[in-house]
Formats: sequence, C-alpha cells, structure tokens
Amino acid sequence: VTRARAQGGPWRPTRFTLRTPGGLSQILVGDGVLAQAGARAAARIKPGPCAVITSRKIFRLHGSRLVRALSAAGFSPSLVFLPDGESTKSIASLRSLYLRFLRARLERRSAIFVLGGGVLCDVGGFAAGTFLRGLPTVLVPTTLLAQVDAAIGGKTAINLPQGKNLVGMFHQPVLILSDTATLATLPSREVRAGLAEVVKIAAALDRRLFARVERLAPRLVRGDRRALTEIVGRAARLKAAIVARDERDLSGVRALLNYGHTVGHALEASRGYRGVLHGEAVAIGIAAACRIGEALGTLPAADAQRQIALLETLGLPVRLPPRVRARSILTHLRRDKKAQGGRIPFVLTASVGSANLANQVTDRLLSRVLDEMGAVGLGG
Amino acid sequence: VTRARAQGGPWRPTRFTLRTPGGLSQILVGDGVLAQAGARAAARIKPGPCAVITSRKIFRLHGSRLVRALSAAGFSPSLVFLPDGESTKSIASLRSLYLRFLRARLERRSAIFVLGGGVLCDVGGFAAGTFLRGLPTVLVPTTLLAQVDAAIGGKTAINLPQGKNLVGMFHQPVLILSDTATLATLPSREVRAGLAEVVKIAAALDRRLFARVERLAPRLVRGDRRALTEIVGRAARLKAAIVARDERDLSGVRALLNYGHTVGHALEASRGYRGVLHGEAVAIGIAAACRIGEALGTLPAADAQRQIALLETLGLPVRLPPRVRARSILTHLRRDKKAQGGRIPFVLTASVGSANLANQVTDRLLSRVLDEMGAVGLGG
Repeated sequence: VTRARAQGGPWRPTRFTLRTPGGLSQILVGDGVLAQAGARAAARIKPGPCAVITSRKIFRLHGSRLVRALSAAGFSPSLVFLPDGESTKSIASLRSLYLRFLRARLERRSAIFVLGGGVLCDVGGFAAGTFLRGLPTVLVPTTLLAQVDAAIGGKTAINLPQGKNLVGMFHQPVLILSDTATLATLPSREVRAGLAEVVKIAAALDRRLFARVERLAPRLVRGDRRALTEIVGRAARLKAAIVARDERDLSGVRALLNYGHTVGHALEASRGYRGVLHGEAVAIGIAAACRIGEALGTLPAADAQRQIALLETLGLPVRLPPRVRARSILTHLRRDKKAQGGRIPFVLTASVGSANLANQVTDRLLSRVLDEMGAVGLGG
Repeated sequence: VTRARAQGGPWRPTRFTLRTPGGLSQILVGDGVLAQAGARAAARIKPGPCAVITSRKIFRLHGSRLVRALSAAGFSPSLVFLPDGESTKSIASLRSLYLRFLRARLERRSAIFVLGGGVLCDVGGFAAGTFLRGLPTVLVPTTLLAQVDAAIGGKTAINLPQGKNLVGMFHQPVLILSDTATLATLPSREVRAGLAEVVKIAAALDRRLFARVERLAPRLVRGDRRALTEIVGRAARLKAAIVARDERDLSGVRALLNYGHTVGHALEASRGYRGVLHGEAVAIGIAAACRIGEALGTLPAADAQRQIALLETLGLPVRLPPRVRARSILTHLRRDKKAQGGRIPFVLTASVGSANLANQVTDRLLSRVLDEMGAVGLGG
C-alpha cells in the first residue's frame, strides 16, 4: 500500500453513488478500473447475453480488456460497432442498434455496455433507454470529456438534420466506469479540450477544485495519470452532485453547467461543427463570459483574468479562431434565443467558483465583447 | 345538483392523482370533461404554442371541441395528423412528428396533446417523451380501451418490423382527460372490446368491481353513458393504483395486468393482428386462463364459469375464432417464451379478483386447453 493509497489519495479509485428519481448510478473512477467491469456490472445486472456498443477504433485500443472482464463475470457480449463522429448520432444508427439487440436476443434485463466517448454514450445510451422500454446500461467513457461530463447525468440524445441533441431522453446508467488509463491513448489536443469542461465546472461551482487544477495544470497537460485520476474523480463527483439536485434540468441548478456553452455552441454551429473541438469552443465561451462579467461589473477583473489565464496554461483558445466573425456567432445565438422563447439563460460567474443565471446580457454588449475577442492583440 | 352528484355518484367526474418516480399525473374521467382540457392543462403547463396529435377521423369527431378549449385557455395548437391503425406506430411516424414539432417551434416546456386511441397515445407519447428529452404531455383518450388501460401508466411504444412495442419509454403524462362522451361515437364492437380490459383488471384485482360490471353489463353493452362513466372511472383508478406500486413493471405487480394477454397476444400474432380486436383476443385469453386454472385445480369451477359468463354477457368471444389452430398459437407462445429466457410469466386467478404469477403451466396443458377451445360445441 503506497502512501497515497493509505491516505485515500489520488491512486485510489473514487467511488460514489448518484441517486436521482430516475434511479441509482454507481460511479467508479480510477486507473485500470476497466478490469473490474464484469464484476462491478454483475453486482447490479444478472450476467447473460449483452451488447457492447463501441467503434472499431476504440475497440482496437480497449475492447479486448473489456470483453475479457465481461466474459470472466459470465456475460456473453455481442459487439456492435458504430462509426466515429457526430454524424453517428442519428435515427439510422438507432435502427441498426435495435436490429443488433434483437439478433443478440437481448431481454428486458440484459445489459448494454457503451465503450467510447460522448457521441457513443449519447446514441448508445438512447438506444439502451428505449429498447424494450429501457435496458440496464453501463457506460465506460474513454475520453476525458465523457469521463468528467457527458457520461454523467443520464442525458442521452441523437441529432436531427435540423440540429444537435433535438431528440433524447434521461436514462441513468446503473454503472459508470471511468478508467483514466484509457486517457493515455488520446491525442493531447483532446485531453486539453476535456480539461475545458473541468475548468468550466470548477469555475462555475468549486473554487477549491479550480485552485487544484491551477496547481496541477502542467502535469494535466502532460497527461500525468495520477493528476488526471484525481481531477476526473473530483469533477465527476461535482457533476453528480448537481445532477442529484436537478436531474431533469428544470430548476436552473443543472443549467449552471452550461457555463461557457452559450457562446461555445453558437461558435460550433457557426463553423458547422468543423475544425473546433467542443472543449475548445467551451474555453472560448468561458473567456467570453469572463469579459462580459467584467464589462457588466459583476465579475472582478482578477477573477476574470484567473479563468482566462488557466485556460491559456492548459493550452486552450481564449479568442475567436481566425476567420470567424462575431456577427455569425451572434446570428446563431439569436436563433438559439428564439428557440427558447426570446430569453437566453446566460451563465456568468460572480467570482471563481460561483456561477449564476443572468439575463442582463444585451446583444450590444455581446457584440462588443466578441468583436474584441476576434481582434488578435487587443487586451482582455 | 342532482342526487347522483350530491352523493358523488357516477355523473360526477372521477378525479385522482397518480404519483410515480416518473412524475405526477392528474387523471380526470367524466362525461363532457373534454371542455375542461384547456383550463386543466393550463393549471400544469404554461399556455403557448403546442401540438395536438390526432387522426383526421378522430379530429372530425372531437377535434373542434378540444381546439376550442385549448384556445380559450391561451394555447396555440398546431395540428399533427397521423394515419389510423397499428402501422402508424413506426420510426417513420416519429420522424414526421419531430419535424412538425420543430416547425411549430415547440420548446422544452411546450405541451403535446394526444387525441385518440391507444395507438396514437403510444406513438404520440413516445415522440413527446423524446423530443428535447421530453415535453409535458396531455392524453385525451377517445376509446374505451385507451381510457381504462392504454393511456394510464406512462408506457409508450412504437413497433419494429420484427415485433410490436419493441421500442418505447416510460413517460408519464401530466394529465389524462377521459371524456366518456366520446365513447358514444365508437362502434359497439369496439366498446365491447374495451370492456374486455375492464373484465381483465376486475377479475385480476377487484371482485367488487367485477360484481359491479356483472350488474351493469346490459347497460354497458348498450353504451349507457352513466354506467360507462362509473366503470371507466373505477377501472382507471385501479390501474393507476397498480402503476403507482410498480411503474417500471419490474416487481411483478404490474405484470398482473397481463391477465389474459399471454394467449391473447399469441392469438393476435398468429392472425397477423388482423380480424380480431385486441380486447377480443384478451377475452379469449381470459377464458383460456380460466380453463387452465380449473384444470390445475387452482381456480374453483364456479369462479372460472363466472368470468367466462361475464365475457359472454358482454358479447365477447370465449373460444378460438374459426380456422385458428391451437398449434399456431402455441408456436407464437413458444417464441414469446424464448424471448423471455425460457420462462413465461403466465397470470392466473385463484378466484375472481385475485391474480398471481404462475409458472406451472406446461405446453401440454396449454395445448389441451386450446384444442378444447377451438372445438365449437364442446363444454367449458
């Protein structure tokens, strides 16, 4: 037993339970926990025929370890491969998943495992939540973004040609198994993008986590496993605490997790979801929210600077990408606005670790801030 | 105030609440309650743009009353027509519903109204439960079967080419408004088929309701509105009580509502769902369950006879239709069996009003009983 282990330090897996009206999710975060998938799942679901939804690329990296763990616990997995990428979140994918579930002779209490990032968790979770009115689901997120954010909270979705995540449901997985060892296979750009969601939740809700990320930043960017395991565990626990208070995103509490996402989504949409990673768009959105708060006088300049500085330390963008015009982001924001009844719930921070819903953000202010953020070299 | 009203008699609407982990449903059963749709809905959902899912045929009968009530309460309904019939429970219908919801600019808190029978409640409820991860839904069932059974309990579903109800979710409506005046427009065969579900729930769970149906049978068959209103209210309340105890159909309690459905479903499947109404198949299934219980010695002959006699009084079939072979029903039953892991949960009654899950029903016994039921003229 190492010192860290004895103290319950970062090498020890983080294990906790998320209770919602939708059910009870066990969450396990740790280096190497994939090997426990079979035994942990068997504690909640009777072993038997099951499906593993993944992509060929992810399966090549982590699949055999998962299949071995499941088989050892008495599960008989049928593999279901989906293409990578956002376009896999479609009605066509659902149709093919249902067909594979039927061929695998899945029953109402059979397990669905999803091995992959946010896209696969979204579409696989939705298929699992709707086949035979819902099968027990185990998520094994393999990206940092999915481990700290997408896999936790039961949101599932597919896209329609008219927009992202327009169809979905809340389906709480019975188990979320985040093996931080899988993060070693990610490109460093994707690790950094995932860290943007950590900055988001820390800046919005937990100044101690924020300070810890500041301290660990150089190690996180290097992909240090101990640092990542600690931060993923803490971020996941924080997300779960929010979900426990507002599973269905109705009371406004869960909406605070949209910090950085209003401008972020509009930026992604304005680029047709190409060229910029979701986490990168969120980083730019956080920077925008900081500038807005500063301009409104609701966020001290030091707190704004601190957030922007951390994003920069993590190698994340805090300005608009070249050739993106403020005006096109505004157009997409206004469309979003309309879709929500004329009021856009803009999340701002009052200080590091304290977010709230604001509705005093005018188009004019937003336009000015975005203009400033596009002009390289202008101060913040 | 009439005497019945003053005593809380059958002319007074039945109003009660169904509480489940999935939410809170208000249920209102009464003659003419459709006129209250707008006001009742507005008590739970902020009026604004909304969708009304229905068929052209049903809209012609009841649509203008619903639209008038909604408009008076401040709702702006967009009408969405689906074809009648089981084949409308498809992925294609979902796709077109989502498109119409987008065109109607529905938001996360917009209402979906479904005006129609079980098929429309199933597919409309599923679309409502998945669009933007779930919109508040009001069901206005217009068939007896939907009022006493299908609309209550949150089960929604679509079919796949491989089978019925293979995809769906639990989505509790915020309001179920059963106007028994709409039953006057039903063909009498459909009213009788709906009464089969009343016999089912009474025989399985409530001998006092069963006795009341026996007493009211001649009036129910004539379509007497006062008798129907009383029985629909009582059956709906009973169903809701079961759902409250076992929303997700997991503990075995809700499974008791499958009384008569095991053989019933197999019969429907063996006929390709043509020629026999669901309620008629259920009546035959109840008769089969009675004969099985009698043969096993677990149901007194008098209790079996009483159930079969009530079905006959209501003009429902208690024998296999001509040209249906016992063997083909057995084939479908075995397929079902396989799909549930080799064990078929057969619901039997021990007496009128008391059902339980039995697993002592052998293929041989079932085969003998079905053979007897096919041979017209042999005693029961």
